[in-house]
Amino acid sequence: MNRRIVVARRPNGMLVEADFRMETVEPPRPAAGEVLLRTRYLSLGPYMRGRLDESSYAPAIPLGEVMVGSTIGEVVESRREGFAAGDLVLAASGWQELAVSDGRDLRKLDPAAAPPTLWFGVLGNSGFAAWVGVTEFARPMPGETLAVAAATGPVGATVVQMAKRAGARVIAIAGGAQKVAYACEVLGADAAIDHHAADFAQQLAAAAPSGIDAYFENVGGQVLFSVLAHLNPRARVAVCGLIAWYDLAGAPAGPDRTPELMGTILRKRLRVEGYILPDWEHRRAAFEDDVLGWLRDDRFAYKEDVVEGLANAPKALIGLLQGKNFGKPVIKL
Amino acid sequence: MNRRIVVARRPNGMLVEADFRMETVEPPRPAAGEVLLRTRYLSLGPYMRGRLDESSYAPAIPLGEVMVGSTIGEVVESRREGFAAGDLVLAASGWQELAVSDGRDLRKLDPAAAPPTLWFGVLGNSGFAAWVGVTEFARPMPGETLAVAAATGPVGATVVQMAKRAGARVIAIAGGAQKVAYACEVLGADAAIDHHAADFAQQLAAAAPSGIDAYFENVGGQVLFSVLAHLNPRARVAVCGLIAWYDLAGAPAGPDRTPELMGTILRKRLRVEGYILPDWEHRRAAFEDDVLGWLRDDRFAYKEDVVEGLANAPKALIGLLQGKNFGKPVIKL
Repeated sequence: MNRRIVVARRPNGMLVEADFRMETVEPPRPAAGEVLLRTRYLSLGPYMRGRLDESSYAPAIPLGEVMVGSTIGEVVESRREGFAAGDLVLAASGWQELAVSDGRDLRKLDPAAAPPTLWFGVLGNSGFAAWVGVTEFARPMPGETLAVAAATGPVGATVVQMAKRAGARVIAIAGGAQKVAYACEVLGADAAIDHHAADFAQQLAAAAPSGIDAYFENVGGQVLFSVLAHLNPRARVAVCGLIAWYDLAGAPAGPDRTPELMGTILRKRLRVEGYILPDWEHRRAAFEDDVLGWLRDDRFAYKEDVVEGLANAPKALIGLLQGKNFGKPVIKL
Repeated sequence: MNRRIVVARRPNGMLVEADFRMETVEPPRPAAGEVLLRTRYLSLGPYMRGRLDESSYAPAIPLGEVMVGSTIGEVVESRREGFAAGDLVLAASGWQELAVSDGRDLRKLDPAAAPPTLWFGVLGNSGFAAWVGVTEFARPMPGETLAVAAATGPVGATVVQMAKRAGARVIAIAGGAQKVAYACEVLGADAAIDHHAADFAQQLAAAAPSGIDAYFENVGGQVLFSVLAHLNPRARVAVCGLIAWYDLAGAPAGPDRTPELMGTILRKRLRVEGYILPDWEHRRAAFEDDVLGWLRDDRFAYKEDVVEGLANAPKALIGLLQGKNFGKPVIKL
């Protein structure tokens, strides 16, 4: 049988486990030209929140359909040339134990090149989002200061390490003492601040004595406004994500801070740019070359937060949206 | 005697006439190396609101000091080589009848090249703000659609005409039937919409069948959000001014629309950039060459709203901030 998790209903604001439903159905059978995959790992990411309703640039997943997501699968039966039982592939099977594919969405993985689950994180869209944001938008220069929130996740950790490599001073923002320590000690941030701290604004001021020249925006919320206050004239803001706001059912209560935001953009002559990965696929090979090189030379740190069991995927996704994970969330089946 | 208008107090939200005070003082006397100027015209601009408190990038005018502003003066006594009685100069004497200058802030005007008051508007910072925003940030291309609000003022009117010259479709937003008609008939906009109209959003949708590729932002407020809804992916937003918000005493009531604004920047991959003119002085000569050329060829429309009398300057500035002027506001003394 095939166990799978489907979208049960549209979330009303904050995501809850009851927005999903576990089902057991007949296993799929591969037709000629197809392979049957057994899911080994699921990747979780904040983008998933947007796919559950109309708030993303991508269409919502229809109710009753399997929750989408990147997976690592093992070929258990191949009716397609080029694939054999035992092959490990990067797939998009979603939250289910078994799936068929015609091979077009599969990528064979070489377990010798890198641990396979890294293709979910620092070698996948998370690392790519960081790489595009740093190289194309935030562009930290030697001597400049870059700030990034969610700094220990796979996106933020890649941003921190790339900005250090570029010669910038890096301010890492993260939630909790453990993540703050990791950002400095393992990732090499020059300063790290706990966004839960009561004196967050004062700590940020102390960490940015020369202001902030580039902000990698992946959270939104109050952190954005705290950083805005310390941006230097002509600073760049690369808008990669807004996780603090993904759970909103509507516009939050006032006051309306858009005049403050737009006024800061004007007075400080900021450049604020959003980007999404489908526009940047032509740069993916260059990104993978970079990260594989850093991994090979052992000059690149990453962290995974592995949870066992398909049934725990909804809870882990909710935890991710609340910042409870520490490292790239991976579900091991 | 010298009549002058000074800043009486800090405005509390909306500017009122009592924030200014008229004084009559001894006339200034030119020292050696100085000239005595009689003010002929004052220029009014929305930037003045920001100089009255701490909301601008420029420092606030101290209380009791003469209100600042560009002027056109006639030299009535010269103790400086290079200036003679009768010379017409662009100056920064502020709101007073008589002023002295050591000549360093003066620019002699040739009344034959262009009507002198145009140096307040389409040949001055208003035209320059439009020119920088269009050439460096909004960058309309042939076949694209550009939208601009306050489209009949000296900034907006220059934007409309430059964008048409660049081959773009232009949507002009203005307040009132008279301005809307002027935008189409005189400035050449392809569509013009009254922002007071109850069905403004529907009119904007109808005027932008292919979306909007570039928005010249000089107002803020609800117009910004209406335009955001029609921006195309990767559209550019040039943030030149936010006149709708200059009078705010604090953040307006909710809901807070920053998540909507930032979410739109992300999903539509917008580039939102603020700019201020002090960063662009190296381009001013190129701008003046362009506009003088268009004026010489009679291919450039402009409109002035001339009010007589120094005492009417505060009222005219308040009217400007409320969009009551029609054309560049000029005070004739």
